[in-house]
Amino acid sequence: MSSWVPVPDGSDFPLENLPYGSFSRAGEAPRLGVAIGEQILDLGAVARAGLLDGTVDEPVTTLGAPVLNPLLAQDHAAWARLRARLGELLTAGAGAGSTAGHLVPQAEARMHLPFVPGDYVDFYSSIEHASTVGRIFRPDGDPLLPNWRWMPIAYHGRAGTVVVSGTPIRRPMGQRRPPPDETPPFGPTQRLDIELELGFVVGRATTLGEPIPVERAADHLFGVTLVNDWSARDIQNWEYQPLGPFLGKSFATSVGPWVVPMEALAPHRVAAREQDPPPLPHLRLSGEWALDVELRVDLAVDGGAPEEISAVNARGLYWSAPQQLAHLTSNGATIRPGDLLASGTISGPDPGQGGSLLERTWNGRDPLPLASGARRTFLEDGDTVTLRGWAGGEGTGRPRIGLGSCAGTITPAG
Amino acid sequence: MSSWVPVPDGSDFPLENLPYGSFSRAGEAPRLGVAIGEQILDLGAVARAGLLDGTVDEPVTTLGAPVLNPLLAQDHAAWARLRARLGELLTAGAGAGSTAGHLVPQAEARMHLPFVPGDYVDFYSSIEHASTVGRIFRPDGDPLLPNWRWMPIAYHGRAGTVVVSGTPIRRPMGQRRPPPDETPPFGPTQRLDIELELGFVVGRATTLGEPIPVERAADHLFGVTLVNDWSARDIQNWEYQPLGPFLGKSFATSVGPWVVPMEALAPHRVAAREQDPPPLPHLRLSGEWALDVELRVDLAVDGGAPEEISAVNARGLYWSAPQQLAHLTSNGATIRPGDLLASGTISGPDPGQGGSLLERTWNGRDPLPLASGARRTFLEDGDTVTLRGWAGGEGTGRPRIGLGSCAGTITPAG
Repeated sequence: MSSWVPVPDGSDFPLENLPYGSFSRAGEAPRLGVAIGEQILDLGAVARAGLLDGTVDEPVTTLGAPVLNPLLAQDHAAWARLRARLGELLTAGAGAGSTAGHLVPQAEARMHLPFVPGDYVDFYSSIEHASTVGRIFRPDGDPLLPNWRWMPIAYHGRAGTVVVSGTPIRRPMGQRRPPPDETPPFGPTQRLDIELELGFVVGRATTLGEPIPVERAADHLFGVTLVNDWSARDIQNWEYQPLGPFLGKSFATSVGPWVVPMEALAPHRVAAREQDPPPLPHLRLSGEWALDVELRVDLAVDGGAPEEISAVNARGLYWSAPQQLAHLTSNGATIRPGDLLASGTISGPDPGQGGSLLERTWNGRDPLPLASGARRTFLEDGDTVTLRGWAGGEGTGRPRIGLGSCAGTITPAG
Repeated sequence: MSSWVPVPDGSDFPLENLPYGSFSRAGEAPRLGVAIGEQILDLGAVARAGLLDGTVDEPVTTLGAPVLNPLLAQDHAAWARLRARLGELLTAGAGAGSTAGHLVPQAEARMHLPFVPGDYVDFYSSIEHASTVGRIFRPDGDPLLPNWRWMPIAYHGRAGTVVVSGTPIRRPMGQRRPPPDETPPFGPTQRLDIELELGFVVGRATTLGEPIPVERAADHLFGVTLVNDWSARDIQNWEYQPLGPFLGKSFATSVGPWVVPMEALAPHRVAAREQDPPPLPHLRLSGEWALDVELRVDLAVDGGAPEEISAVNARGLYWSAPQQLAHLTSNGATIRPGDLLASGTISGPDPGQGGSLLERTWNGRDPLPLASGARRTFLEDGDTVTLRGWAGGEGTGRPRIGLGSCAGTITPAG
């Protein structure tokens, strides 16, 4: 199957993907769209033309919104009907006549935050990441704390500082740990880091006191986006006991401009790694819930070309998104449309698979040599970090389902 | 000065208070109101009558909203103009003719969440609370961790489970710490606790990367409400390393129905306790920023009468609200209208001044005898906890500025 909209070889956005975003052209207000090839289909315009009747409730209002939240408030069946209709409209031989006027070139569009996050929860679901962090900071102890294999450990991040790819990231100020009995220095972080993560955007509100059973969690998972959980390691190190990370993380979290529907990734669900010990019954999940998604971190320094500094596959994550959602609600906590669950840093067993500079440089001990001749322990002003992700594509026999990219450039403290 | 609306002796809501809330009568949609005596003045109705022109931007829209967020988006000067005008309209000899038709008896009203919280940050600003918790859990160490006196320690709570007073609180399920090498039990918490706190509701959005200087923080502080940060101590104890409290807190946080303007509490600002060491310059504050607010915890068990189990004054808090807000934004994090900053548990030096059952019973070691003959370590199903707070009143020579009450009844896990 192919689309009447041209889709170049290697594009992230063939007919099988159809991710959602919020876009505008100069002088226009943000509005919802779906990526296809190098174009964006204007969802509100298509809805106003009557072409999305019978898919979601109140299509003109829901899809004429600037963010996905009204759509996220509806149910899984509505999401599926909308996706099916959009697929029909964009398939070669169909709908071109009625929808061609509603395409906007991506090159002319500015992207906005695709959803307003209600609560943002950041998990810690990569066993390689958690183990390496444990080895770095507790070299003499067990790398994993005793609770880690029993539950997807997590904390609440700051929802109000979730920003879209492309937003400049100002180096945060903060306190650092002083020598004993001395005054903590306050100034620009000296250990500005990245965290390569997948974000799950959830929908369909629940009722206080009523957990989501793990086998129903998928009904609340709308889609996936890239997440860079920027981290100031020195600020975090001084503040985090006993209540966890706060200012070391809250200055900004970047998300990708596109939310890829779970349904687009369905062909790329694979068996998850074995969990040992087996999870408690309320976290026990059958079915294939790991995502075979390739992830990359590119770093560009001194205005130079981007260079790949990390490559890992998300299928290695220990805890899956349905398990995270079941855990999150197991105490009766509600979810709201637009809540964001991030995986935590995704790392693999090899050094080149570390999803943070903390891991790639062993907490700054081993600087990373770059092709340009530069070296990096942590980020410097002017550095640009770009996350990329995709499933399928070249060599897999399946269409490429791209997540797009999630970029941010460091600007000086001030 | 007095109001033409009758204000009974000992009322929380004289003319000098005028707190904001969201209310409805049976079959009506929630709308904003101001408490006066035993009545609520319907703000939207008064605005539609043209009586609030010239106070806030677009008074009919702003004050016709179901929550305070549109008002919180405006500035300090608008808040002051609105409060001044409401005072005029309610003063004896003024406005009765024009506004008497817009009063609704509190007895007929159901109260709703007065604001939609953007982010909810819970601090840890009582030195007595932090020290007692330290002594309970680290009996051989320094009760305060080294960072505590240098910054107001905090974590992000779950904004989506902030609920209004009166909402039933279902006992949460969760994992508890097992003996070494055993499987964690999963079931209803056995250590359900309260935390007596003050909440600061903030307004006027900021720009990413631009901290709020401590001396400007007051411009963003709209008002104060009661907060009960319900806590499941056993769940918290097992999960909280290394990323802080999560499911042990996220099942529910109750807030009072009334937000008392900072301006109403201005006569009750007193000098804060000395901070030693002196805070770093960005947290150093002149002026009187402790609040002389009396707080009480009442517990009713077995359907019996409420009994006071804790009495403390908020003036003993070590870190003030402006310092909390300056710290929170010192890394460039933005705030949004409706963000909620809670003080953390407020405790005093005496055993009867503990703001949690953890402290009142020394982590369950010393059950609390109640007048009814019952004893409590932690909360049982059917228990009702009510927080109360006020400044001034009897014996002070100043009008009583009441915060109202914040109540919740425990329902069984299920």
